[in-house]
Amino acid sequence: MRIVLPLYPNFTALDAIGPYEVLSRLPGAETVFAAVEPGPVTTDTGALTVLAETALADITECDVVVVPGGPGCVAAGQDAAYTGWLAAVHPTTRWTASVCSGSLLLGAAGILDGLPATSHWAVTDTLPLFGATPTPRRTVFTGKIVTAAGVASGIDMALALAAELTDRETAESLQLFIEYDPQPPFDTGSPAKAPAEMVERVRERVLSEA
Amino acid sequence: MRIVLPLYPNFTALDAIGPYEVLSRLPGAETVFAAVEPGPVTTDTGALTVLAETALADITECDVVVVPGGPGCVAAGQDAAYTGWLAAVHPTTRWTASVCSGSLLLGAAGILDGLPATSHWAVTDTLPLFGATPTPRRTVFTGKIVTAAGVASGIDMALALAAELTDRETAESLQLFIEYDPQPPFDTGSPAKAPAEMVERVRERVLSEA
Repeated sequence: MRIVLPLYPNFTALDAIGPYEVLSRLPGAETVFAAVEPGPVTTDTGALTVLAETALADITECDVVVVPGGPGCVAAGQDAAYTGWLAAVHPTTRWTASVCSGSLLLGAAGILDGLPATSHWAVTDTLPLFGATPTPRRTVFTGKIVTAAGVASGIDMALALAAELTDRETAESLQLFIEYDPQPPFDTGSPAKAPAEMVERVRERVLSEA
Repeated sequence: MRIVLPLYPNFTALDAIGPYEVLSRLPGAETVFAAVEPGPVTTDTGALTVLAETALADITECDVVVVPGGPGCVAAGQDAAYTGWLAAVHPTTRWTASVCSGSLLLGAAGILDGLPATSHWAVTDTLPLFGATPTPRRTVFTGKIVTAAGVASGIDMALALAAELTDRETAESLQLFIEYDPQPPFDTGSPAKAPAEMVERVRERVLSEA
């Protein structure tokens, strides 16, 4: 089972690493970090660089694609080598997935046209630009496509996807393995739960970084 | 505010990346991935390599240290260059933190003697080897030391630590930024919640990988 995480400069690390931490531990999984140009890829904070060991052009099919989001998605969405690869590989997958603004990249690749989808809450209203219907849920499954909400939602998405790829018990075992028993010290993780002025301030920060 | 993540071969990626995703976004934060030998460091699955840009020996003081766990902690705990660095830098920090079996490395550095601490649930009972008192909570704060439970708990820990380093509103804003509104599809994230035979199987897997 080949799982590909297609990276690009200024992606958000947790968007990719959350799902990786679950899916790479599935039985028989081969996980590949890839990019248009293989080599070091620096994340949005500038503080973390990960290696993309494989060129996207060298991957013509795979079982699972997980597209991360991040401020770099604006440039990646205009890079035909990136979006063209997504469009070409999507017909070969069992599952095509995104986290956060990664759904905008699926959209730019023409994959979400006419479908429900989610994204980071601050950018969900751009989904109609790609023909998608904004659906503000933690994860949105439609056919073999799953989009997840912002950053940390990729862990929830990956556990659900793990059950689809194998079985529920395997997925539950991975939840226990990574001790994903969330106990956030606060309860401001979604715009519905945070004060309005905080939502606006964080929205501006997210948009200013893109 | 200088935040250091001291990596070592075969660490668990999410242990480091969860806290990084929160703490690196604090106002004035400078986040440094470091290792005994700077350069590429491969994580426990073998599928992900991140760059440690700085040698631990070049860091003589910092504000925050976050020590990740992972099967590589067994070797790192016997590497005097790693544990010696932890012991030397600890007196300079505002906060010394660990995630998962990273607490065993704090222990090996002599930092947890006589203190309460937690770790990944499968290895918590080794804490007394270092004079620490196993305390099965999501996060254990004691003085300027905080230890977190397994892998995913580092996100909860980092949000609490963010509030200590700045203020509650800043931390809450980061929770919203990363949309950390957990909705796990299952409820097997801790040994108290999972079936006993699953707990034993996962415990064996964790221990066999170490």
